[in-house]
Amino acid sequence: MTEKVRLAPVGLGRWARVLARAARRGDLIDLYSCYSRSRESRRAFQDEFSIPRSAGSYDELLADPEIDGVVITTPNDTHRQLITQALDAGKAVYTDKPIAQTLEDALSVKAAVERTGGVFAVGHSARRLSGCRTMKKWIDEGRVGGVSMIEANFSNERGLELTPDTWRWYLSKTPGGPLIQLGVHHADNLQYLLGPVATVSAQTRKIFTKAEVPDATMTILEFESGALGYLGCGWASPGIYQIRLQGTKQNLIYDLDFTHWDESHEADKYSTLVSQAYGEQERAPVELPPTDMFREQLEEFALAAIGRATVEVQVDDAIRALAIVHTAIESDRRGGAAVEVAPYLDAVGVQPSAGAGE
Amino acid sequence: MTEKVRLAPVGLGRWARVLARAARRGDLIDLYSCYSRSRESRRAFQDEFSIPRSAGSYDELLADPEIDGVVITTPNDTHRQLITQALDAGKAVYTDKPIAQTLEDALSVKAAVERTGGVFAVGHSARRLSGCRTMKKWIDEGRVGGVSMIEANFSNERGLELTPDTWRWYLSKTPGGPLIQLGVHHADNLQYLLGPVATVSAQTRKIFTKAEVPDATMTILEFESGALGYLGCGWASPGIYQIRLQGTKQNLIYDLDFTHWDESHEADKYSTLVSQAYGEQERAPVELPPTDMFREQLEEFALAAIGRATVEVQVDDAIRALAIVHTAIESDRRGGAAVEVAPYLDAVGVQPSAGAGE
Repeated sequence: MTEKVRLAPVGLGRWARVLARAARRGDLIDLYSCYSRSRESRRAFQDEFSIPRSAGSYDELLADPEIDGVVITTPNDTHRQLITQALDAGKAVYTDKPIAQTLEDALSVKAAVERTGGVFAVGHSARRLSGCRTMKKWIDEGRVGGVSMIEANFSNERGLELTPDTWRWYLSKTPGGPLIQLGVHHADNLQYLLGPVATVSAQTRKIFTKAEVPDATMTILEFESGALGYLGCGWASPGIYQIRLQGTKQNLIYDLDFTHWDESHEADKYSTLVSQAYGEQERAPVELPPTDMFREQLEEFALAAIGRATVEVQVDDAIRALAIVHTAIESDRRGGAAVEVAPYLDAVGVQPSAGAGE
Repeated sequence: MTEKVRLAPVGLGRWARVLARAARRGDLIDLYSCYSRSRESRRAFQDEFSIPRSAGSYDELLADPEIDGVVITTPNDTHRQLITQALDAGKAVYTDKPIAQTLEDALSVKAAVERTGGVFAVGHSARRLSGCRTMKKWIDEGRVGGVSMIEANFSNERGLELTPDTWRWYLSKTPGGPLIQLGVHHADNLQYLLGPVATVSAQTRKIFTKAEVPDATMTILEFESGALGYLGCGWASPGIYQIRLQGTKQNLIYDLDFTHWDESHEADKYSTLVSQAYGEQERAPVELPPTDMFREQLEEFALAAIGRATVEVQVDDAIRALAIVHTAIESDRRGGAAVEVAPYLDAVGVQPSAGAGE
């Protein structure tokens, strides 16, 4: 058996627990140390996951030669500093999405990746869900025909429950609200499925939430292929996770019950993908082979950290997803006029081509 | 029993047949005469529906004192002339949606309605579907809570099948393509559900159709209530008819198999409305009381023609729906920037208030 890869969670909240449980479903990852600013959090996390050690400071964690990589799940606006510091310390870095708060921050991350040649992965796990993988397969195999429209929605009730003691309350820490927290997943999914987005038009509104952030956002994407995409993200309703694709031969409708999202080995069971063929209104269920997005992504990262795999979603794909969020915010600021994505990518040295689904 | 109301179909194509069958499901309407430019069409239609007479010209039809009203199903760009002429001849007029091709044409229609005081109805029948009526009821009763987002899609494969001998091929006759032919239904439905739209942003693209018209259109609506709406209309995929509403207490998802649209007494059976409550991912089916949109609408019109009912969708509501289409086209022309609806309504003397669902 391969020797285990030693990883250390950084930021020990709910999401670190989801990822730790995912890592524990396999034999590859050894959760060897951990770090959070709070001593109590460290102790609780160590106890819960039987982690042998923890670090009293981030510097101390990064100085530990036994650690192969860190798994960052801290607030968005801390990503840049934590990622670049870890890369400079020679650690492989996995960060939760979005790659960073701003495109400027993302540029620093990209520079650090290039400077250090380090292994870097971003948790755009949603493309690994069986429904998304299957849609991609059907597109690539020509089974859906030409795609003219794709619609996605990722919404939940978060905005109705936010309180001022959480960072998501503040616009400065969560620009776009549900767009950066939820929408960035679909920004990756949709480009994974249909290739790069050329222009973005968006409207965002704060309607029912007491927080500073918007709770209703709608974005229209024009893909370089010519297809149009819609991305709806709200924070003021019961939860929705859907992707609906309109092809000349088939429609595909993907619907996920994301209350099972955290236990990603179960998520596919609570998903449906149905196809609707040309000339037919009847829909046929499409079988979804089981996946485990968080485990797969962490194991890919762990193998990459020891030179035995390549990370699927690296810095450029993650920046392409973040660019959709920020061009949407800019479009909203301009009253909904379409904003070109390319100049934003150029500014951070990223090519528009995602190398996907033309 | 009430004496039957004598109506005459004008334009004797597929849609006239759908409406004639709907009228025949009741006892109120007597299809008494009919008119089309083609003598063969008139004869075939008379035979099919045992209609006692037909007119050799539109003037002749309108001069027939036995006829209470006309039912117009001709191409959009003929509506203005046919409607105004019939109103001036003292006939009640039912026209298929859209009310007219352009807002200028709609203004002429409105002027004729006001000048003559005639009975005028527009076939915005879709709001009468049980799913739409039930959504409206739930909104009005406060069961969905505050609505932040609503999404609608009406698409089909028409654009892949168009040929140059059909008027829908041409942009001059079908501006916006699926937006004016399909989307105008949802433009009425969504304003029926959530009240007037303040601004419209849209993107339209011609991707797979050989015709002049676009086959992919996406529109974002900002309602005066603050809610955001999305309207997707394509002509290059298998058929879709959906309305998805996001409320603080409930989501409602309405999905209609519109292959049964024509036989509107059956349509509700092939529809589903499901609710999803706050904090729940599980969805519950909502019972849909049976409706028959075309029959109900024609019978309401027939009764109005003899002074015994009021038409639900009159000239102003129909213009409000058409205004969404034309502001969307204008927004697309301006690169997707939000266009205010009010000036377009002002120009034709219509108040923005739909008197609906605040």
